[in-house]
Amino acid sequence: MEAKQPVTMQTVGEIERLLREISTIVKIKGREILNAFPITNPQFDALYLLHQEGDMTIGELSQRMFLACSTMTDLVDRMEKNGVVERVRDNRDRRVVRIHMLEKGRKVIHEVLEARRKYLADVLSGLSDSEKLEIKTHLAVLYEEMKKS
Amino acid sequence: MEAKQPVTMQTVGEIERLLREISTIVKIKGREILNAFPITNPQFDALYLLHQEGDMTIGELSQRMFLACSTMTDLVDRMEKNGVVERVRDNRDRRVVRIHMLEKGRKVIHEVLEARRKYLADVLSGLSDSEKLEIKTHLAVLYEEMKKS
Repeated sequence: MEAKQPVTMQTVGEIERLLREISTIVKIKGREILNAFPITNPQFDALYLLHQEGDMTIGELSQRMFLACSTMTDLVDRMEKNGVVERVRDNRDRRVVRIHMLEKGRKVIHEVLEARRKYLADVLSGLSDSEKLEIKTHLAVLYEEMKKS
Repeated sequence: MEAKQPVTMQTVGEIERLLREISTIVKIKGREILNAFPITNPQFDALYLLHQEGDMTIGELSQRMFLACSTMTDLVDRMEKNGVVERVRDNRDRRVVRIHMLEKGRKVIHEVLEARRKYLADVLSGLSDSEKLEIKTHLAVLYEEMKKS
């Protein structure tokens, strides 16, 4: 048992470094891909949330995006001007306003995700199918553990 | 061969999603960890580059960080005020100024990385040593492929 500890800490240290480096590449590549589209990075993040979870209020969006409500309001204003979302009043409670993704937003999301998949298909093209499956399996295990904590 | 293609694209799609979700958690967690330290996110990124590559000019730093030179200059000003770096003139060519990490910067980097490793050790604590090794191995394969493109 005593001998194991340093090996594990070294492995954890290497996983930490790899995750940090990979996340940096994902971020930079994601920015590059978005350059070809008429939306910014925070707009993409907000659209993706609406795509995953359906209509949300400004309060819900700002909480999920770790932004102040006023910052989120400005962002939604720009997205509305951009034609990717609209504000919709709740039929039952007219005081509640939700942000609703429009067709242009849906189209942008699909095209951006397609471009990201294409980039990753290129990245992984040198690997065998079974290696790709292994990567997917272990990323899924890691993601499950990260979601827990 | 024909039947394989959809499987591969599905795997690539899932890897894309997992990488995006994991990178988001890494980013959010990284911000949370930095909250306990006297530096901001871009200051950490710059310090980490200096830690990895040694002294650099503002031009070199701005290129590596994808920032405009003027933005980088402001950032270095704040870092110098913060006592984590200093500007050093080249002995041979006095026109060249390099950014040099100070002891306080080195200490912050080590403590931040230690906090990130501790977080990840917690995340992975439910997994066996061999599962951790598998994750490390496949992340390393993925990182090598990402670096190439």
